[in-house]
Amino acid sequence: MNAAAMVKTSIDMVEEELITREQALLRIDPELLEQLLHPRLDPDAAARPVATGLPASPGAASGKCIFDADLAEKVGAEGERVILVREETRPEDIHGFFAAEGILTSRGGKTSHAAVVARGMGKPCVAGAEGIVVDVTLRRAIVGDHIIHEGDVITLDGATGEVYLGAIPTLPPHFSDDLRNLLEWADETAELKVMANADTPEAASRAREYGAMGIGLCRTERMFNASDRLPVVIDMILANNEEERKSALARLLPIQRADFIKLFTVMSPDPVTVRLLDPPMHEFLPTEHDLVDQIENLRIYRDVVRGRQVALASIAGAPPLPEAFMELSEEHVNDALTKKERMLQKVRELQETNPMLGHRGVRLGITYPEIYAMQIQAILEAAAECANNGIDVQPEIMVPQVITSQELAHVRRTVDELTGKLEEETGRKLQFKFGTMIETVRACTRATHLAGNVEFFSFGTNDLTQAVFSFSREDAENKFLPMYNESGILQDNPFEVLDIKGVGQLIDMAVYRGRKANPELKIGICGEQGGHPASIRFCHNVGLSYVSCSGPRVPIARLAAANAKLREGESVR
Amino acid sequence: MNAAAMVKTSIDMVEEELITREQALLRIDPELLEQLLHPRLDPDAAARPVATGLPASPGAASGKCIFDADLAEKVGAEGERVILVREETRPEDIHGFFAAEGILTSRGGKTSHAAVVARGMGKPCVAGAEGIVVDVTLRRAIVGDHIIHEGDVITLDGATGEVYLGAIPTLPPHFSDDLRNLLEWADETAELKVMANADTPEAASRAREYGAMGIGLCRTERMFNASDRLPVVIDMILANNEEERKSALARLLPIQRADFIKLFTVMSPDPVTVRLLDPPMHEFLPTEHDLVDQIENLRIYRDVVRGRQVALASIAGAPPLPEAFMELSEEHVNDALTKKERMLQKVRELQETNPMLGHRGVRLGITYPEIYAMQIQAILEAAAECANNGIDVQPEIMVPQVITSQELAHVRRTVDELTGKLEEETGRKLQFKFGTMIETVRACTRATHLAGNVEFFSFGTNDLTQAVFSFSREDAENKFLPMYNESGILQDNPFEVLDIKGVGQLIDMAVYRGRKANPELKIGICGEQGGHPASIRFCHNVGLSYVSCSGPRVPIARLAAANAKLREGESVR
Repeated sequence: MNAAAMVKTSIDMVEEELITREQALLRIDPELLEQLLHPRLDPDAAARPVATGLPASPGAASGKCIFDADLAEKVGAEGERVILVREETRPEDIHGFFAAEGILTSRGGKTSHAAVVARGMGKPCVAGAEGIVVDVTLRRAIVGDHIIHEGDVITLDGATGEVYLGAIPTLPPHFSDDLRNLLEWADETAELKVMANADTPEAASRAREYGAMGIGLCRTERMFNASDRLPVVIDMILANNEEERKSALARLLPIQRADFIKLFTVMSPDPVTVRLLDPPMHEFLPTEHDLVDQIENLRIYRDVVRGRQVALASIAGAPPLPEAFMELSEEHVNDALTKKERMLQKVRELQETNPMLGHRGVRLGITYPEIYAMQIQAILEAAAECANNGIDVQPEIMVPQVITSQELAHVRRTVDELTGKLEEETGRKLQFKFGTMIETVRACTRATHLAGNVEFFSFGTNDLTQAVFSFSREDAENKFLPMYNESGILQDNPFEVLDIKGVGQLIDMAVYRGRKANPELKIGICGEQGGHPASIRFCHNVGLSYVSCSGPRVPIARLAAANAKLREGESVR
Repeated sequence: MNAAAMVKTSIDMVEEELITREQALLRIDPELLEQLLHPRLDPDAAARPVATGLPASPGAASGKCIFDADLAEKVGAEGERVILVREETRPEDIHGFFAAEGILTSRGGKTSHAAVVARGMGKPCVAGAEGIVVDVTLRRAIVGDHIIHEGDVITLDGATGEVYLGAIPTLPPHFSDDLRNLLEWADETAELKVMANADTPEAASRAREYGAMGIGLCRTERMFNASDRLPVVIDMILANNEEERKSALARLLPIQRADFIKLFTVMSPDPVTVRLLDPPMHEFLPTEHDLVDQIENLRIYRDVVRGRQVALASIAGAPPLPEAFMELSEEHVNDALTKKERMLQKVRELQETNPMLGHRGVRLGITYPEIYAMQIQAILEAAAECANNGIDVQPEIMVPQVITSQELAHVRRTVDELTGKLEEETGRKLQFKFGTMIETVRACTRATHLAGNVEFFSFGTNDLTQAVFSFSREDAENKFLPMYNESGILQDNPFEVLDIKGVGQLIDMAVYRGRKANPELKIGICGEQGGHPASIRFCHNVGLSYVSCSGPRVPIARLAAANAKLREGESVR
């Protein structure tokens, strides 16, 4: 029975008093809802699959068949929709994944490289469609009596594993009244709250539609990346001193404040947890390689603008001169060049061997206190303005990458200063919570001490998993995790399913120690595993207050949270 | 009072029965011994330093300034004393370290590659002497108003970080009978054994002189880096399939076996712990940047060799054509070019976002089982040959980066197969131990299960510290650790002094769980902290069997181990 039918019959059976609401909730595997939450093929489009593989990553997609990653990247860059088709994929195909709408392989299982990487990126994937014979040399694939030439359009359904010729229309996710009904029962049963990870007011609105009870993780750096802000962020990074940095931050402040006002308003009266800046600064700058290219080209353009060596641009193989440059003065080009050269110098300064373990999170906040101060001020001012307009808001300020309570004390001092000032100005008491991510191993061992400084903990299980396994997620999923899964060394991908035997033990330790020091402590989890049913069950059992996951996983999490409560007594394994 | 006087008066007072041996041991701060264990500058030689860097590895040395590892090796082989001077060093410079009396870099911290490797070899190193501008192209370094040309003599003092022009006389280390005496008493008192980290028979011999009771860590990759092996290792990495890889490994086997025979013989009858290959493969290849340069130059040389564009080399700004090339055929240059291009492709394939958390350690051993099989075979055959020659050896095979017992089971299977075969061939039972590094957090939580598969644990506290803090050592020491120390957020550098509150808790957990499952388990520590007195005290208190540190730290560790035993009851903080 498919998911929609399953939901409908459950509701009907309750209405006919054949089963209880609890039985209805337990009848449905939360993962089944996945089918209802991604774009799917229009069932009215009469089409017969030409091949079936494993449903390796959900969602439906159409695009031109392309047989290697280099070409996929090229065709994708031209604005075409691409399906990457390979016998099996390997780490060196990674750029093809970025370019593709979906991935199809003729070999490999649900834990093959293609499956693991596609799921990690949230792209549809059909793996191990053995009926398809891929012939890269002849640039074609044979499936039954059909020959698919490179460039032919195909459609994948990652929920069923089916492959179609041509483009099949897709329907947006189907959120029926029955499903809405069922999930309301789930919410009444569950003890865990379900929040969403969302970084923009738009994403927050969508999360609301999925039934999110607040935002458990708003990554402020996503706001920094929008094209109207990035230049200001770059000015901040290139600043030669605190003064210059503060001037750039002063320009960012009203932008961030406006973002938060919108976000708080959309989610009112539910909590919104804002994480202070986390990624290393070089993530906001172009790569060294790109900058070297750009500088080389700018030098050629400068010569052209000078009119000295008009023909040189083509000789030196630079891309065609942008027309805009012809109207620019030498001075303009020189300014651009100077800025790029400074960027390059900065990129080289900021280079890190292992950025995951580098100068990021609260370490940045302590090295450049003015960055965190700006963000905290924006959050508090937004909260004050909302309150002023009668909008009930619950902002929560969250510090990332903490390893010791001294770091929290540092940031807390800024929070207290700014709160004091603002309360004096407005004559109104500010409502907010202060908390910390628990995403380093040391934060778990030091939970007793951290808990005295905060009102909430939020487990960042993505980073925590990386630290516990000494696995970099990107490198692991791309290089050895598929092989580890296939050979049975690891049963699951620990970045999808919470590793109870390792990561879980540290969570357990931190919850115990944190609550012992601070019984009022609110504790949640905001890693990707927060949307996975078995992981949610673990979170319920160790006594967390909430889980937070990506918007489309919220319904699954709501049902799983109810099931976790209903299965409380049962042994886990 | 200086160290020599301190030791002498202590011994005298015992002889005069003024104090007990225990009191004598407790009187001396183990760190003080550092003074006695390295050559030092003659304090009577009046000289003024021209630059100061970080005191990265103690000792004093004079020699000719040489700006690259190849030339250092050549000049060293001619019997000259050499100081290797680089902006910073990389693993491919290792032969330069072997050839040099001391190492000087203008960039990098106390834990940069130069510092760590030099400390490991017991050679003086001044790191990050930023006043020196190294210009390899012009074969000179500029420091203030001085130009140091290649071949000029300089003197380093690794204990102060000072650099001098010319040769300053040094005094040899002072390992007096008194000190020897004192350390023998220490050994009688201590419960912890003190082993050394050593990768070559030469280093092992030196460690013996310092009183090491075995080798706690032999990093086989250091053997791979020697200039006669690296080409074979590169062939192995470039192999297109298992067959090609096995052929390269077959050439490495006798080399590794011969290394182990020498090492086991030097250390007989004490244990030698050999760690199977750990670093990611790209560490054995040149950087992408260097390869791109080399390929560009080779293309120019090819054109020159073809005689078509003789003048082009200088036009294109390539370095002067090596004379050797003038005698080479076009075919030779083409072969070199093809090989470099393949290397470049491989380097790009192997690129990782966070190499520290990437495809390394046992993950490599499982992806390419033939690599570990070759190493295990070399160890076992070396042990068999030693036994055959009446040399009593205790090899220990150690697996790095383990997170689960399934990984150990995989490697163990290879060990058992090879042991069975070899025992049948020789008709003699092989004596060895099989064990695992404990250097991931997950290994600590899974210690119960790991312990069932092994005879020993060895804590790799360098990597474990990185995982617990989510700090990449290189990035942390260069970018934010100094600021964290200065502002009191962290008291110590956790890579030098074991972090008891975080890392220590995991060690404690792993020792408890490991011994519970396997009471016979031998447990040691082989991170750099193993030579630090406060860390040694912790190791004693949690019941470890041994510590292993760099050779020159062994005497300090021996005294610290005795003091730890004598201070057993005292509270630690």
